[in-house]
Amino acid sequence: MSVKGRLYAIGAGPGHVEWLTLHADRILKQVEVIAVPQGQGRKGRAEQIIASYITPAKVLLQLHFPMITSTELLTKAWDEAALQVASFLTQGQDVAFVTEGDPSLFSTFYYLLQALRVMIPDVALEIIPGISSIFGASAILATPLVMGAESLAVVPASSNLAAVAQALQHFDTVVILKIARVFEQVLAMLDQKGLVERTVYVENVGYSHARVVMDVHQLDPHTVPYMSLFIVRSGRQDARESTRESVGL
Amino acid sequence: MSVKGRLYAIGAGPGHVEWLTLHADRILKQVEVIAVPQGQGRKGRAEQIIASYITPAKVLLQLHFPMITSTELLTKAWDEAALQVASFLTQGQDVAFVTEGDPSLFSTFYYLLQALRVMIPDVALEIIPGISSIFGASAILATPLVMGAESLAVVPASSNLAAVAQALQHFDTVVILKIARVFEQVLAMLDQKGLVERTVYVENVGYSHARVVMDVHQLDPHTVPYMSLFIVRSGRQDARESTRESVGL
Repeated sequence: MSVKGRLYAIGAGPGHVEWLTLHADRILKQVEVIAVPQGQGRKGRAEQIIASYITPAKVLLQLHFPMITSTELLTKAWDEAALQVASFLTQGQDVAFVTEGDPSLFSTFYYLLQALRVMIPDVALEIIPGISSIFGASAILATPLVMGAESLAVVPASSNLAAVAQALQHFDTVVILKIARVFEQVLAMLDQKGLVERTVYVENVGYSHARVVMDVHQLDPHTVPYMSLFIVRSGRQDARESTRESVGL
Repeated sequence: MSVKGRLYAIGAGPGHVEWLTLHADRILKQVEVIAVPQGQGRKGRAEQIIASYITPAKVLLQLHFPMITSTELLTKAWDEAALQVASFLTQGQDVAFVTEGDPSLFSTFYYLLQALRVMIPDVALEIIPGISSIFGASAILATPLVMGAESLAVVPASSNLAAVAQALQHFDTVVILKIARVFEQVLAMLDQKGLVERTVYVENVGYSHARVVMDVHQLDPHTVPYMSLFIVRSGRQDARESTRESVGL
């Protein structure tokens, strides 16, 4: 059997290059090939975050993952991306696939891996965790997500409004992701449940143009970007209440 | 008004020193005073993780947070810790408070902050996010927590078994923390719901003695350490199913 390269999946965090881990930093400096997901022709966020690591000595693989729902076309895109990655691995070169946030949370990496394992079943693999935008948002707000016995739910709103309602009913803190396309429906739901005053909006966490909005009714639904989220703290538990007050939310 | 020092809350990740961020690394090298939470006299995990940053030139503040439930005694401990931190801040020295994982997820930091704000209402503050043990566990397992439209719940079991049952009923992936003291009850619940084969156990994430157990019935309840968790993937959604299979879970 030939000696093959190792595939690294690197969580690059939400945007701030200093939120990369030392592990990610070391591997990005060390690998020959850096692969990044790319949307509609424009430079992807992962590539922007780790731009300083892309030196002339390295190969940059921009892997095209179209923002579509067609399983057939997506599968084709993953297969093509996997083929490119496999060509380097089989030549014995290490490849670092960089993903925003953390690889375990809504990352494209595992689709790529699935396609790659058809080509290289025993691919040598290392996952490097990253900072989630959820933790980045909490850092900007200087508030805890959960304390003591509290429970946390993380729900993508765009295709799952029923799950959002369910989470708001039963969890102490609910992080609602992918709100841009269903912003008005989510806001109506928060209004109906009397949770608007317990909701904070954050967009573009980790970037210099990050923005926090406490009065979410002031938001223009048409300007809510893809990288935005609501944090809803239901106030069910006393411990969080006092903390909430103490940190000025 | 006197110039005061800045307080940093640093998420040190679950155990692996390379899982510190570049931001944490920079601040830990730069500050004069490093504060760490400490349990029953023994060296705390946060201190172990960042041990290499504790040079003779720095002050190490070991803040005693007893593992008790008495609000009165806890409040006393936080007040005493805050007083120590405040004494450095008011002298114009920066203090880095180091916490395991991420500061927003079940961290003692916000209790300390609450006490400190009574003494220094306008304390200059910066939160540095960290890698959660949840992401660390997923990295070790090389499996995603959630994909696509899936929902995630994070529930501490020890004081909230009803919330665990609720989460298992409605969420695609449930991370159950603080399982040591209620291990048998949680396992019985997973059995009852037919979820044992969809559950993975991980302990001491980020450490060299980290351990993954796929067949959770093989676990000895008496040896389950505090730093352990279950990840339960309910298999409700097809996308995750195929991914689960592809990564060999």
